[in-house]
Amino acid sequence: MREEHLMKTCSETDTKGVLKIVEDVLAGNIRAVARLIRDIDNGRPETRSTLKALHPHTGNAYVLGITGAPGVGKSTLVDQMVRHLRKKEKTVGVLAVDPSSPFSGGAILGDRIRMQRHSTDQGVYIRSLATRGQFGGVTQSTIAAIDVLDAMGKDYIIVETVGVGQGEIDVVKSADTTIIVVIPGMGDGIQAVKAGILEAGDLFLINKSDKEGARRTLMDLTTMIEMNPDKYKNGAWKPPVLMAEAKYDKGVVALLNKVEKHREHVKFLPASLKRQYNEERTRTELTEMIKKRIVEDVLKDLALSGELKNAVDAILDGTKDPYSACDELVLPKIRVERT
Amino acid sequence: MREEHLMKTCSETDTKGVLKIVEDVLAGNIRAVARLIRDIDNGRPETRSTLKALHPHTGNAYVLGITGAPGVGKSTLVDQMVRHLRKKEKTVGVLAVDPSSPFSGGAILGDRIRMQRHSTDQGVYIRSLATRGQFGGVTQSTIAAIDVLDAMGKDYIIVETVGVGQGEIDVVKSADTTIIVVIPGMGDGIQAVKAGILEAGDLFLINKSDKEGARRTLMDLTTMIEMNPDKYKNGAWKPPVLMAEAKYDKGVVALLNKVEKHREHVKFLPASLKRQYNEERTRTELTEMIKKRIVEDVLKDLALSGELKNAVDAILDGTKDPYSACDELVLPKIRVERT
Repeated sequence: MREEHLMKTCSETDTKGVLKIVEDVLAGNIRAVARLIRDIDNGRPETRSTLKALHPHTGNAYVLGITGAPGVGKSTLVDQMVRHLRKKEKTVGVLAVDPSSPFSGGAILGDRIRMQRHSTDQGVYIRSLATRGQFGGVTQSTIAAIDVLDAMGKDYIIVETVGVGQGEIDVVKSADTTIIVVIPGMGDGIQAVKAGILEAGDLFLINKSDKEGARRTLMDLTTMIEMNPDKYKNGAWKPPVLMAEAKYDKGVVALLNKVEKHREHVKFLPASLKRQYNEERTRTELTEMIKKRIVEDVLKDLALSGELKNAVDAILDGTKDPYSACDELVLPKIRVERT
Repeated sequence: MREEHLMKTCSETDTKGVLKIVEDVLAGNIRAVARLIRDIDNGRPETRSTLKALHPHTGNAYVLGITGAPGVGKSTLVDQMVRHLRKKEKTVGVLAVDPSSPFSGGAILGDRIRMQRHSTDQGVYIRSLATRGQFGGVTQSTIAAIDVLDAMGKDYIIVETVGVGQGEIDVVKSADTTIIVVIPGMGDGIQAVKAGILEAGDLFLINKSDKEGARRTLMDLTTMIEMNPDKYKNGAWKPPVLMAEAKYDKGVVALLNKVEKHREHVKFLPASLKRQYNEERTRTELTEMIKKRIVEDVLKDLALSGELKNAVDAILDGTKDPYSACDELVLPKIRVERT
């Protein structure tokens, strides 16, 4: 009786807590936003109710994905883009997805410091996502953080990722416009973007275009795009390749103009195509969410029950092979028609 | 009755099939190995029984993980390492983990072509893992492929990855010795290795050390390693930083000598430390296997039953938010104590 009462009080407080956070986020309260994104990044399950409640307030922001290998100048580019968008009085959120470690924190810090010029500007919110969560889930955390910045009322959300790894490709796929950044002379030009991320590119940018090999890289990228003529039939968007020197603000306005072109293009797609496009995106996002959730729940259960530790011991003692151990751990935990 | 008979025959054939594959792999039959790794890479569930049967024959190969950003010269380095190991009459397997796409197939091909000089050498087996599987799982496929090359009798297995993304970090962690390759002047030297992979490094190699900035990179890396003095107490291995120009075979023999040093170091660790070390590795590998398995089974079930499609439709129609849809899809599929 008493326990039941306690539980009720507790869940009432929870609901009130969620409403308060939602209210604060919608009002653009920076602290509430920061705390919520931190909790999402740490994979705290209680953020789910907040995200559910925020969802009806999303869908207004335009999401730009920016991806490229380390060292291509993504942060500098984003910095300039933010500056130009602010001139037009657009509010901007920036999410820098850094699958990083404390060990290498210095470099990230360095990147972020460059953005400090916006730190007193209420219209800009910049945030790194460490995605250090025990169970991975970079995609799901990033999508949730986008929802938060969207709900808080940002006009543009720029998501910056190091474009390698399946998770990051999925992040990029859920942007409205995806920009792939390369620099001249990295390997054979193409090397730098060989991570399956190419198809996701709506715009290609060759940054540091004063460097040797820029024309070669331009040719390589153009050739690769032309190699897929079927893809661009029926008025489909054909990704342009642009040159820039973001450090000196060269080519950044041209890039933003192309972004608007792409935005218009998608806006005026026939309804059936648009539905198909949204369907793919929604399916990817939902799938990521499901993946993270089941992995989290099942692994937590296996860890807490001690079953994982017992299996590891059995493998180390040589009494069980890892493949059989996996079968024995997983099968009792899932309820599916066909396994 | 008939069906039962058929099923029996079928499963008998399966068992025979598995035994045949196992026999062929143990005999070093290249075709059987290639086919099995391809099936693993495509995530075919029937490979599980084969892997179970191969497992008792593994544990003899020494696994080297080589990781670094695109363009640092990993393939050239691996090529030289293979050459030197072959001189000592060691057999070598190479797994190049390429989370790539058909679109960018050219670059991978280019990398591989450089390795062609070993193509007529029976003592070398080189293989790319596309890890294009519908449900990701780069780690699990790679670990399984390592088991196959180990069982086929290779003395050394070199696993080459583009060192970004959680999956790749886990791959690297399951190597016996991990080499992190950087080149001078990429971003701020550290940029190139900012992906949480640093702690996993047993050896650091600055390749293309004739390039400007090599000394700066050496200093940066050394400083970073020295920053963690606690880690190297009690005779723990302290990662050395080496210089090389792999293209001209400079520094490659020195690198291989350090690999042997590291191998000896680990071999003579006290039993308790060794157990701890193996425990971590086994836990990581088993966890990856479990992750892939549950995601695969549950998502397949949700796709086949049409539940995933219905949920996507409901989200697109605005009758459901993705967070609630995820709850409703996942909870009935898992059987855990606490969710």
